[in-house]
Amino acid sequence: MTFELPKTMKAFAMRKIGEVGWIEKPVPECGPNDAICRPLALAPCTSDIHTVWAGAIGERHDMILGHEAVGQVVKIGSEVKNLKVGDKVLVPAVTPDWGSEAAQEGFPAHSGGMLGGWKFSNFKDGVFAEYFHVNEADANLAKLPEGLTPRDVIMCSDMMTTGFHGAELAEVKLGDIVVVIGIGPVGLMSVRGAALMGASRIFAVGSRPHCCDTAVQYGATDIINYKNGDIVEQILKATGGKGVDRVIIAGGDVHTFAQAIKMIRAGGVIGNVNYLGEGEMIDVPRVEWGVGMGHKFIHGGLTPGGALRMEKMANLIKYKKVDPTKLITHEFKGLEKVEDALMLMKDKPVDLIKPVVLIEYNDKL
Amino acid sequence: MTFELPKTMKAFAMRKIGEVGWIEKPVPECGPNDAICRPLALAPCTSDIHTVWAGAIGERHDMILGHEAVGQVVKIGSEVKNLKVGDKVLVPAVTPDWGSEAAQEGFPAHSGGMLGGWKFSNFKDGVFAEYFHVNEADANLAKLPEGLTPRDVIMCSDMMTTGFHGAELAEVKLGDIVVVIGIGPVGLMSVRGAALMGASRIFAVGSRPHCCDTAVQYGATDIINYKNGDIVEQILKATGGKGVDRVIIAGGDVHTFAQAIKMIRAGGVIGNVNYLGEGEMIDVPRVEWGVGMGHKFIHGGLTPGGALRMEKMANLIKYKKVDPTKLITHEFKGLEKVEDALMLMKDKPVDLIKPVVLIEYNDKL
Amino acid sequence: MTFELPKTMKAFAMRKIGEVGWIEKPVPECGPNDAICRPLALAPCTSDIHTVWAGAIGERHDMILGHEAVGQVVKIGSEVKNLKVGDKVLVPAVTPDWGSEAAQEGFPAHSGGMLGGWKFSNFKDGVFAEYFHVNEADANLAKLPEGLTPRDVIMCSDMMTTGFHGAELAEVKLGDIVVVIGIGPVGLMSVRGAALMGASRIFAVGSRPHCCDTAVQYGATDIINYKNGDIVEQILKATGGKGVDRVIIAGGDVHTFAQAIKMIRAGGVIGNVNYLGEGEMIDVPRVEWGVGMGHKFIHGGLTPGGALRMEKMANLIKYKKVDPTKLITHEFKGLEKVEDALMLMKDKPVDLIKPVVLIEYNDKL
Amino acid sequence: MTFELPKTMKAFAMRKIGEVGWIEKPVPECGPNDAICRPLALAPCTSDIHTVWAGAIGERHDMILGHEAVGQVVKIGSEVKNLKVGDKVLVPAVTPDWGSEAAQEGFPAHSGGMLGGWKFSNFKDGVFAEYFHVNEADANLAKLPEGLTPRDVIMCSDMMTTGFHGAELAEVKLGDIVVVIGIGPVGLMSVRGAALMGASRIFAVGSRPHCCDTAVQYGATDIINYKNGDIVEQILKATGGKGVDRVIIAGGDVHTFAQAIKMIRAGGVIGNVNYLGEGEMIDVPRVEWGVGMGHKFIHGGLTPGGALRMEKMANLIKYKKVDPTKLITHEFKGLEKVEDALMLMKDKPVDLIKPVVLIEYNDKL
Repeated sequence: MTFELPKTMKAFAMRKIGEVGWIEKPVPECGPNDAICRPLALAPCTSDIHTVWAGAIGERHDMILGHEAVGQVVKIGSEVKNLKVGDKVLVPAVTPDWGSEAAQEGFPAHSGGMLGGWKFSNFKDGVFAEYFHVNEADANLAKLPEGLTPRDVIMCSDMMTTGFHGAELAEVKLGDIVVVIGIGPVGLMSVRGAALMGASRIFAVGSRPHCCDTAVQYGATDIINYKNGDIVEQILKATGGKGVDRVIIAGGDVHTFAQAIKMIRAGGVIGNVNYLGEGEMIDVPRVEWGVGMGHKFIHGGLTPGGALRMEKMANLIKYKKVDPTKLITHEFKGLEKVEDALMLMKDKPVDLIKPVVLIEYNDKL
Repeated sequence: MTFELPKTMKAFAMRKIGEVGWIEKPVPECGPNDAICRPLALAPCTSDIHTVWAGAIGERHDMILGHEAVGQVVKIGSEVKNLKVGDKVLVPAVTPDWGSEAAQEGFPAHSGGMLGGWKFSNFKDGVFAEYFHVNEADANLAKLPEGLTPRDVIMCSDMMTTGFHGAELAEVKLGDIVVVIGIGPVGLMSVRGAALMGASRIFAVGSRPHCCDTAVQYGATDIINYKNGDIVEQILKATGGKGVDRVIIAGGDVHTFAQAIKMIRAGGVIGNVNYLGEGEMIDVPRVEWGVGMGHKFIHGGLTPGGALRMEKMANLIKYKKVDPTKLITHEFKGLEKVEDALMLMKDKPVDLIKPVVLIEYNDKL
Repeated sequence: MTFELPKTMKAFAMRKIGEVGWIEKPVPECGPNDAICRPLALAPCTSDIHTVWAGAIGERHDMILGHEAVGQVVKIGSEVKNLKVGDKVLVPAVTPDWGSEAAQEGFPAHSGGMLGGWKFSNFKDGVFAEYFHVNEADANLAKLPEGLTPRDVIMCSDMMTTGFHGAELAEVKLGDIVVVIGIGPVGLMSVRGAALMGASRIFAVGSRPHCCDTAVQYGATDIINYKNGDIVEQILKATGGKGVDRVIIAGGDVHTFAQAIKMIRAGGVIGNVNYLGEGEMIDVPRVEWGVGMGHKFIHGGLTPGGALRMEKMANLIKYKKVDPTKLITHEFKGLEKVEDALMLMKDKPVDLIKPVVLIEYNDKL
Repeated sequence: MTFELPKTMKAFAMRKIGEVGWIEKPVPECGPNDAICRPLALAPCTSDIHTVWAGAIGERHDMILGHEAVGQVVKIGSEVKNLKVGDKVLVPAVTPDWGSEAAQEGFPAHSGGMLGGWKFSNFKDGVFAEYFHVNEADANLAKLPEGLTPRDVIMCSDMMTTGFHGAELAEVKLGDIVVVIGIGPVGLMSVRGAALMGASRIFAVGSRPHCCDTAVQYGATDIINYKNGDIVEQILKATGGKGVDRVIIAGGDVHTFAQAIKMIRAGGVIGNVNYLGEGEMIDVPRVEWGVGMGHKFIHGGLTPGGALRMEKMANLIKYKKVDPTKLITHEFKGLEKVEDALMLMKDKPVDLIKPVVLIEYNDKL
């Protein structure tokens, strides 16, 4: 099957720091290992907001935004073997160079330099466009499993894999007591990830009612609200002073680490998946960190990406171990609505967890 | 609080290979690190059947049977710090010597030699008695959490910790496809353990209807019945020839390993928790094991025991991540019924998963 | 720089099972991700002997032999970024497809199916030729570090990485007592690998004097010779009956596993890197394997390959942590001598450990 | 064999913060699981200096100092099985309660609370006395191997096990490039530990000539002297900007972590074994830590202790994998010289690495 690609396309971009808009750009080139896709589902991410309005990755001009997508392959390179035009695919936010040294080390997210596996709307154009480019397509795109819709899996690209990675970084084991700090969409997925990895008691730290309800649905056993007092004291009290086995940080800032260190037992592990936008230093309190010798492990990392990861995420959905669509509070139809979805993310109404945009095509591809 | 212990007690014992009966024995001595308990809940195990009727551990005379119990502390040694007379406690089947070299290596189950951590009805008298002895009481007994009954947690002693250890040995990771071979009470707990550690698709291999139903309740997504053909072929077909990520062996015999090797992908892990009673060699097929180089990891081990393990198991119940009482198909009242319960285990009626015996006392201890 | 490649080339091949010879073949094509190299150093391997005379991988016709090489790049594909014509490179025996599912799982050696990462003289032509083809050149070729010669590093391709992988599979830790069974070139590298990973006492099981001497140079503390009695008994006696922590299997056959199981403690790990050419089943003795519950871990796998692995091996040589040239007992000059070297490997004179062939060129590439 | 213990004994103690002196104290009691030892070799530690002159663990009165010893058992409790009066033993600085929850979790150093496994001259009297008490003697004392002297192994108690733990915390793997910051006695042992675990290139950061020489003897390949410029820049330059795989911190202060973060690659691991005496927060720079997502793992912990650890350390010495006596720059004879040794540690002459005190007895015990 072949598909006729136009020369140019419409896309929603960061014009410069602080400004977004629709632009016209050439349709991307397809190298021998690559694929060109068109979007079936898209979601804006807080990172897009950071990128545009906080200058998180520095200045960019007319860079297409977006890194969460389910797509359909419209063109493939000469070396691509597992995909064909028309395939519906999960697109990970992180699309590593799999032959890189970092990937061979087991850290594909850092191929080509720290955080270098995150390419969309960072080192290259993102997915908020009529067409987008995927490097190493065989290795980075997973086929949509039969029986699942783009809406079912759109949270896999980033929210689910990132949230779950928090639980992986915290090395949750059977019967562990876990705290998840921050229960936006990533933190909610960390709650579910902790539950899926065998946590017993799960403290979810948050205050927005809809998020708290959703946390309980995902396996949280206790809600800790900072409005009821210092969260460290609340958690130490609830655990009889012993502290917890694991802390997953999915919200807050550089000072959140101090809280995590204080509420975790010696031998516990902290897993951070929160983007830290401000502050010179992460707060790691010397005394509570055991004057350097408390075996309180501090981990933090960008989600792994790639096809296999997406396949594993999709299987967890297919086999009913998680339903990430509970995150979807707002739904739009049509590529042009990606702007509204992004603005919603910027404004953060109280009932928002995550908006998605669904796109349909009339052709028979 | 003190409790007056009699000199002798009634107990249900293996008289010799092939014969059981009630005997009178001295109440056990309590060393400085030990505790004496009386039973609140007991369960017979297939191992008891192997011990008596298959001579699995060799000849024994008047050895009290049983290693699954919830108890109440009636006496403690001079060095015991965390327990007091009257405490209700989870009793693990495996009660290691925690200072031993094996425990320091991370393998407490083998303290004092391979399998040496399993003491009850093996190296010393078991728990089917008016009183039983627990070594290193602080380290081996976990207090019954508030809100839970002895019946709620009696499956922790062996079934749950052993079944879960199968999933641990198989190193189940988020999104893995897992097979559990054998879905008696241990295998059912392996199904739940695999689900709790993040498996996506879970094949449960079994045929008894009640066990299959229970497997689905615990998270199995596919039931594989050997009556429908070779189980290896069924599983390879269901996975498009790729094979599975993990196999947990909780039933079968030495030949089951050959099936596991054939259905698992290169890089997969096999976790065995099945007692292998017969055969000279385990079947590991050379070619399918990658002529020695297939990275198909073969693990097998006795469950860890001890207080912390019991506490983690109890927390999983308390926080509703697992309900092991689904295993309990038959229930008795009174110590004397332990004989009926054992015989039920020997006869294995089709609807049996696991019997328990509950014991109440009139005193105020 | 460019280099003019001829249309055809001379190569030493397996004509069919049991027959070798020189043939003329087209020079291989270079895809966009590939490189074509010419050999600077070559070594025949016991696997080549198994391939030709034992039919280990099945019938092949005019397949070029050889998978151990140091080379020089003479052509690169359009997508290759890190290499240029003229670069001297370490060539691993195992050249994975790095984007494959198996590589993403952490098992690149099995990309494209079990053992599928081993391509040279298996699924495609080997390196005993005027030119040879390397897939995913950036990811599979490591530059020869300054100060090292092709002869210094030729053992990295297979002997060193494979031998070291035995120590990795056995999970050698600081202070462990280790046995290495079989001290041909791979086993000798396992001795060194065990020493490099922190073994204290290292038993080397072998009998040929030159190998035993070399084992001691590489860190063995005790030589165990089967001529002095059963090796299991010798090792149990030497360890006061406790057994050892790790066993690396680098020689023997399917029965060797039974010995390993018998000499290892509960909780120990066995790492196999020996190719198992015969027998239906690996011998794993049921009783000594703890009736399924002894935590005696059985691991076996093909060496990882790729550029990073080669770089790590080369650095260990460069920084004087290992000198693999002690393995080189016989040395030849010129590609045509690869036949003599192979025959030497087939005949195994008593003083042989490993032959190499060094090749020089008069051009200025 | 029995040994007549006096009622009181002479000991060298911290009188209060800032003051040391000889005192007379009752000989310690021996509980059922305990042993009483007399010293054969002793060494003062920088921690003793911190304890007395920096008030590192708070105020103490007449607390006997010292936690590095080789001893001889003079009394054992009723439950002790593996030891007898007269045995010469390695005494670890860290003597855990092996049944504690922390030990069951795999962190014995934190039994009874963070750092609670370190008891000598912290929670109880230390070893600078005619007699000292050891809890859980079977689990905490390792017999001196035949052929080794107390002087050979005195560095095991703390320097060697702590230094090696730095390499363990940094998870050094075969071929890794490692930096050791600080090459006092612990750091020198970290250099050796890194080499023993398979490091290729080892940067040792230090300036004192004798320490630098010793670092090279222990396996360092490059000496980095802060007097030649910023150590981060020196190391980045030496690695072509790529950074290193592991950093072991064995000296410096809370700011040293910022250097470590800056010189390590994404995916690398930092292992701290340095006591951090001052500062509110550890410096972890946000940007170089990958804005929270760089997979730069931060580990730090107190050395494990206990009998098995000591046995593993002793075996590494016995089998010639390490010679820790290179650390011994000053040697004294007689218990009374422990004061001189401590003062030497306080004054730190330029040629000092570590002083030891050897003690002999005339009786035939």
